[in-house]
Amino acid sequence: MSTKPTLYTCLSPALLHLYELKNAVVVIIDVFRATSTIASALHNGAKCVIPVDTVAKAVELSKKINGIAAGERDGKIAEGLEHGNSPLEYTPDFVGNRTLVLTTTNGTRLLHMALDNKADTIITGSFPNLSAVCNFLLQQNKNVILGCAGWKDRFNLEDTLFAGAVINRIKENYTIHCDSSLTAEQQYLLVKDDLYGFSPNLTHYHRLVDRFGLIEDIRFCLTEDVANVLPLYKDGMLVAAK
Amino acid sequence: MSTKPTLYTCLSPALLHLYELKNAVVVIIDVFRATSTIASALHNGAKCVIPVDTVAKAVELSKKINGIAAGERDGKIAEGLEHGNSPLEYTPDFVGNRTLVLTTTNGTRLLHMALDNKADTIITGSFPNLSAVCNFLLQQNKNVILGCAGWKDRFNLEDTLFAGAVINRIKENYTIHCDSSLTAEQQYLLVKDDLYGFSPNLTHYHRLVDRFGLIEDIRFCLTEDVANVLPLYKDGMLVAAK
Repeated sequence: MSTKPTLYTCLSPALLHLYELKNAVVVIIDVFRATSTIASALHNGAKCVIPVDTVAKAVELSKKINGIAAGERDGKIAEGLEHGNSPLEYTPDFVGNRTLVLTTTNGTRLLHMALDNKADTIITGSFPNLSAVCNFLLQQNKNVILGCAGWKDRFNLEDTLFAGAVINRIKENYTIHCDSSLTAEQQYLLVKDDLYGFSPNLTHYHRLVDRFGLIEDIRFCLTEDVANVLPLYKDGMLVAAK
Repeated sequence: MSTKPTLYTCLSPALLHLYELKNAVVVIIDVFRATSTIASALHNGAKCVIPVDTVAKAVELSKKINGIAAGERDGKIAEGLEHGNSPLEYTPDFVGNRTLVLTTTNGTRLLHMALDNKADTIITGSFPNLSAVCNFLLQQNKNVILGCAGWKDRFNLEDTLFAGAVINRIKENYTIHCDSSLTAEQQYLLVKDDLYGFSPNLTHYHRLVDRFGLIEDIRFCLTEDVANVLPLYKDGMLVAAK
């Protein structure tokens, strides 16, 4: 009997140190909205997305390479930037063949933490590229950490729901002893037939919709496979894997 | 309109710093088994339970006050102690009118963290004293933090299920904007009709049953109101509140 690789779900960046990343593929999950935006930009023809941890770096680097500086803090466009973290902003006309330099509150921060923790491979996932993520993981056949970005280290359910969607599709190929993964899949099964209808129950929905009216962002971020690329981190940038 | 107090669920000790404990009642939850054992001991007539963080302290203090030194590390009786963390061990004959000095991997550690974070009031909760916990919280009418002890900072589902049971009973009296609480209640509703039947899905079940055969402990720890006292922390000890 061959041994299957393991799969764990990490519910918050503050728990990442509890998991062994060294030989694992880490899936960075920030459904609202960083990893949905990354999928959208790459699907619409961006050359690459460079995740950076500060607004200053986004501005400086984008000037140097003639890229698009973008990002958010607390759910809105970060001060000093012209472009935010909406997946709908990055149309083919705007982003095609350009480089997006992106900084966000949770998702890009978790990605840098995974780097610091020596992850073997880093990809990003969200409902718009669910199938691409699952196919990549199955093809790699390595240990998997599903890393939920949460909100300022707090648990959020939408990232966990995406983890549950992945688990539901690929679990037969992994050894899973992890209550977080069990919970993620059960939650996903409970609401999968109407993710959008369920979304007003999420705290982050109110942050985005009540304050900023971003209901169309929510809809995009919860729709499976509408930007079905595989963002793979390599040499400081996320590129669509062939 | 009067403002309701808030309620949050903290899924791991490693997330406790994200919550404001100062004006809150913190419920320490370690279903398998510390807080079930505390309820059992007090229900069976123990004078009090003194939670300590090391085996050495348990031994030293219990000698001084002629108490019972007890505790576990990694699920079994800690080296140097004669009594462990099984709620069934503390019968009225054994524990009646005595003091239990208890050290455990997760539950007593979280209690000390809540103390360090200046919690207003600390109580312990588990299925055996579910009703007593809910009644106390409603009577206090203060902010509530449901603190899950987890397993070495990892999320575990049984503590979260207990949080969900509390939320399900008292939620009308609180303002709840917290995805952890939403998830906890949904998970509880999913399995509440047969907690015991569901328990083999829990990672901690295997730690306790496969390794140590503690199936009767599991059954006790998942039975509502079989030791329905309210352990209240005061001056270094947990006593049954009148």
